[in-house]
This record gives sequence, structure tokens and C-alpha cells, in this order.
Amino acid sequence: MLPLLEPEVVPCCPPLAERPLTAEEAERTAVMFKALGDPVRLRLFSAVASHEGGEACVCDISDVGVSQPTVSHHLKKLKEAGLLSSERRGTWVYYRVEPAVLAAMGQLLTKAAGA
Amino acid sequence: MLPLLEPEVVPCCPPLAERPLTAEEAERTAVMFKALGDPVRLRLFSAVASHEGGEACVCDISDVGVSQPTVSHHLKKLKEAGLLSSERRGTWVYYRVEPAVLAAMGQLLTKAAGA
Repeated sequence: MLPLLEPEVVPCCPPLAERPLTAEEAERTAVMFKALGDPVRLRLFSAVASHEGGEACVCDISDVGVSQPTVSHHLKKLKEAGLLSSERRGTWVYYRVEPAVLAAMGQLLTKAAGA
Repeated sequence: MLPLLEPEVVPCCPPLAERPLTAEEAERTAVMFKALGDPVRLRLFSAVASHEGGEACVCDISDVGVSQPTVSHHLKKLKEAGLLSSERRGTWVYYRVEPAVLAAMGQLLTKAAGA
């Protein structure tokens, strides 16, 4: 039986406007925002999210003006932040967005905005 | 007649899963994510957002374990990123979340997650 793979970072925390985050909650959540706080990573993330079938390999998204090793480096960072999952198939590693993590981040902000 | 003050950074861009962001869109949007990508700034932001009346001065949120000048520095960064607006009243500068900016950021993510 295959174990269910959990993303390495699990979203936490109430909407930002509900109460002040604790230090620990802020540490966990800042990791995810920081991962999207770089223009190249944000473009790559958007390229994966908008790619056909919701997944992409480095071979699919090499048109952002940086080298393939740099693309791989940034995709790994996004994965470490829990925003992407990955699966090796043959030669390539395919990346996919983690919808639950993104939805949780979106709610942190949207509910904060409504307050 | 008083001019309407626009936030310095205006949110742009379609949901991240709709199409790859352009370089310019990614530059503009990454600034906002980066501002929330620091644990202390994220706690301060949450402290402002959850404070009574939706606004706070440095005097209200000095309990995150950093000095008052550091708090002021981080609040200024959040303002520069367009996430907070500010108003001086007497001795203190009061900060308030920019709901439209946050809602736009939330939608970038939430719609990306649903794709």
C-alpha cells in the first residue's frame, strides 16, 4: 500500500484580520509568501499553474529568460515552500500546483480584506 | 477639494492559473508577496489588520519582540508595497490595511487554486 504523501508545508492560521498571528504561525506562513516574492519564481509558478493539465516540466517552461538550472532551482524552492508537488516520469520531473495550499493562502488574504 | 489618494502599488494581473504572467506583471506582484514573506512583517500586518477599528499605530503593536524603530521600518515597507495606507494624527502615524489590494492578491491565489 502506498503512503499518502503530505506536502512538506501545511497551511495554517486564521485569516490575517481575525487575530494577530503567533510567532510560530508567522514563521510557517511567511515561507509561502516569500516563495512567491521573487519575480522569476512568480512567473514560473504562474507558468506551471496555467500549463495544460495543470502541470509542467522544466522542458515546458524555459521561456522566462533564465537558464534551465535556474528554472530547476526555483521550482525546487516552490516545492520546498509547499506550493508545488512533483513527480518524476522518465527523464523529466513534472510539477503541479498544490490547490489546497493556495486556497488557504488566498483565504488568509481575502478574509483579511473583508474585515 | 481634496485629491483621492491612490495606493502606491496597484494590484494587477489575472489569476495565476489563467496564463503565464509577463515579466512586468510578475515584478509588480512579487513586491506584494515579498512584503508578507518576512515573519515579523507578517505578524505586524496581522496585528494591524486585526486591531480594533482596522487600524493601529506603532504604539498599539509593540509586543512582537522587536524595537519600535524596527516596527516602524517594517510598517513603512508594508506601506511601500501598497498593503497598508497611513495617516498622521497628532503624535502618531496610524496604519490601515488596503482591502482592495489584499482582495486582489487573494483572488490571484484562490482562482489559481480552483483551476
